[in-house]
Amino acid sequence: MTYLDHAATTPMLPEVLAAMTEQLGRVGNASSLHASGRAARRVAEQSRERLAEALGARPSEVLFTGGGTESDNLAVKGIFWARREADAQRRRLVVSPAEHHAVLDSVEWLVKHDGAEVTWLPVEPSGRIRPEVLAEALGDGRDVALTSVMWANNEIGTVNDIAALAAVSHAVGVPMHTDAVQAVGQVLVDFGASGVDALTMTGHKLGGPMGAGALLLRRDAECTPLLHGGGQERDVRSGTLDVAAIVGLAVATVTAVGRREQRAAQVGALRDRLVREVVAQVPDARLNGAALDDVLADGPGRLPGNAHLSFPGAEGDALLMLLDARGIECSTGSACSAGVARPSHVLLAVGADGERARSSLRFSLGHTSTEADVDAVVEVIGPVVERARRAGLGRR
Amino acid sequence: MTYLDHAATTPMLPEVLAAMTEQLGRVGNASSLHASGRAARRVAEQSRERLAEALGARPSEVLFTGGGTESDNLAVKGIFWARREADAQRRRLVVSPAEHHAVLDSVEWLVKHDGAEVTWLPVEPSGRIRPEVLAEALGDGRDVALTSVMWANNEIGTVNDIAALAAVSHAVGVPMHTDAVQAVGQVLVDFGASGVDALTMTGHKLGGPMGAGALLLRRDAECTPLLHGGGQERDVRSGTLDVAAIVGLAVATVTAVGRREQRAAQVGALRDRLVREVVAQVPDARLNGAALDDVLADGPGRLPGNAHLSFPGAEGDALLMLLDARGIECSTGSACSAGVARPSHVLLAVGADGERARSSLRFSLGHTSTEADVDAVVEVIGPVVERARRAGLGRR
Repeated sequence: MTYLDHAATTPMLPEVLAAMTEQLGRVGNASSLHASGRAARRVAEQSRERLAEALGARPSEVLFTGGGTESDNLAVKGIFWARREADAQRRRLVVSPAEHHAVLDSVEWLVKHDGAEVTWLPVEPSGRIRPEVLAEALGDGRDVALTSVMWANNEIGTVNDIAALAAVSHAVGVPMHTDAVQAVGQVLVDFGASGVDALTMTGHKLGGPMGAGALLLRRDAECTPLLHGGGQERDVRSGTLDVAAIVGLAVATVTAVGRREQRAAQVGALRDRLVREVVAQVPDARLNGAALDDVLADGPGRLPGNAHLSFPGAEGDALLMLLDARGIECSTGSACSAGVARPSHVLLAVGADGERARSSLRFSLGHTSTEADVDAVVEVIGPVVERARRAGLGRR
Repeated sequence: MTYLDHAATTPMLPEVLAAMTEQLGRVGNASSLHASGRAARRVAEQSRERLAEALGARPSEVLFTGGGTESDNLAVKGIFWARREADAQRRRLVVSPAEHHAVLDSVEWLVKHDGAEVTWLPVEPSGRIRPEVLAEALGDGRDVALTSVMWANNEIGTVNDIAALAAVSHAVGVPMHTDAVQAVGQVLVDFGASGVDALTMTGHKLGGPMGAGALLLRRDAECTPLLHGGGQERDVRSGTLDVAAIVGLAVATVTAVGRREQRAAQVGALRDRLVREVVAQVPDARLNGAALDDVLADGPGRLPGNAHLSFPGAEGDALLMLLDARGIECSTGSACSAGVARPSHVLLAVGADGERARSSLRFSLGHTSTEADVDAVVEVIGPVVERARRAGLGRR
């Protein structure tokens, strides 16, 4: 099997599985006061410290959640509610239209349900948000509750200059959230240095478990809880701490961040070859997003594992199924909205037409990817695209 | 170690750990369309079917969540929002004041943030809500969004006649939610037969993992999502399905429900002896909640594993720490609010005064409890209570 869908989820690291299995065998609610409870609490707090250190945050800035979707919902809704409660004129959200649905749909719900307004930021063809565009959208910022721009795009892999965007947002007193689910472990993510107020990350994109994520939240950022109850996690996120998952999340984060540079070089070289040889086989295939050699001040401008290509005249779903039948697993876009036959909102946001948006595939490489995986794709991509094109013609 | 805090969390069953470890070694996002994704989806759906069958629900009525707190928040807020959106006069919540904080604090937030009103139901000294009291509180029901009464209380273990309460709520057209976190696996829980519209359950109270729970939600119950995004779980709960945790939740539920009657008999006998012999050692100790032999039409009126006692003149926290020093782990109330020195809201709701509320301990027994655990408590409880009483006098 050739697994090239690491952006959807990536295999768990052996050291994560070992750490989780050990903790799953222990009993103790981290909110309990007795010895077993205190032991569970200690494990959770050590994990918090390790995760914080790996991401340039303070331990008190780490709030454990159930994953990326929850962290995005908590940041967008929670900061909106808290900011508007402090000042009723702060009703506007300034957001990239290329965000994950967890951000987009939270924004749209606040508009419908809570009287929010939204300014959608114009996106560069590369998928990037330019700081001056954000500055213009914010205006004097007085009516803005929150800026939200993702660190790296989950579909096309474009990396934003988050520190520059955060500086622009802060210049007019507006806090900034970033969804860094795809960025952590692939590019340098330093919460403190980036200046953002809230950062979403999750475990299962970097070798950790599903169902475990975090929101990094600055101490001075006000955030209304989404989940009320026992008062865990600074009273911002109630619920019994899932200590085994938290241990797994921390081990995965520390490991992925520690091996990041070496891994990025390996994965990036594989990805470059994949794109080069696929285009050699299918000359009109087109790379979406930033160029392979695009760079920002502190690192690559495109996620090293991401290869997102359009194959004009072929339907992405047909390509996906034909590749799957040959043992090659990839995606037409984000797994979370896969199964729904609509063109990618990300490609539409970067100015692609509907046909190009529908004819695209995402190959995403990760820690288990090999030269053989690339060979497998290169070997079949030509006939597969040709067959998908014929199928498309047949349906007309 | 004598672990008598199973109501806070109970050790994982070996078959759950085995099932989870197997799944943790597999890759695949259940929303992905390729073979690995479909395999993950199949495992999740089989787990959904098994869990549904064990609890008298249809598979389509099972929404997987991150745990009991999330399920409670989703039910209370989501049904409130949906019902009020359909009819603006439905702003009132009819709720027991002895609920878990995940319900109470959700209600209080809706009052503060969303213009909700609340009617707190009078509670019997046993901790039970009488159907006629609910009927009176509901009135004609036209202004009510939701009734919420827990199946079994987490602190004092009192079981409610949920089917009778649901019938009363439905008689005036009001949906009912019940938090059955403590009930599942301890008493008979049949979602369909109970008539409730929404039911909260969680894994780690019955031998499954933390971070995994479900909201059972009738197909015709409207519920606004708390987590927006990829549209998983009938579009009511977005987020990548945590398949390993879901497998663990299902195995734990099927196992705990299958062994329920046998286990309840064993655990109930141990609990009865614990209470009898503790009272023999400390004659003025007082059992809180329903009598040990209290019964409802379809089973016990008190959770078989619950022993909640007040020790007049002794502080609960002092008792807990003195027992812990002797290797006996229990709780002063719910683990989720442990650490905060305030009298239990449950005991205050059943009419206890502050001193009685502060002098209480919860011993909760479960699947690993033995005669030796009971012996351990009986051996030390007399001296421990005496010492706590002296310490209390010393502080005056």
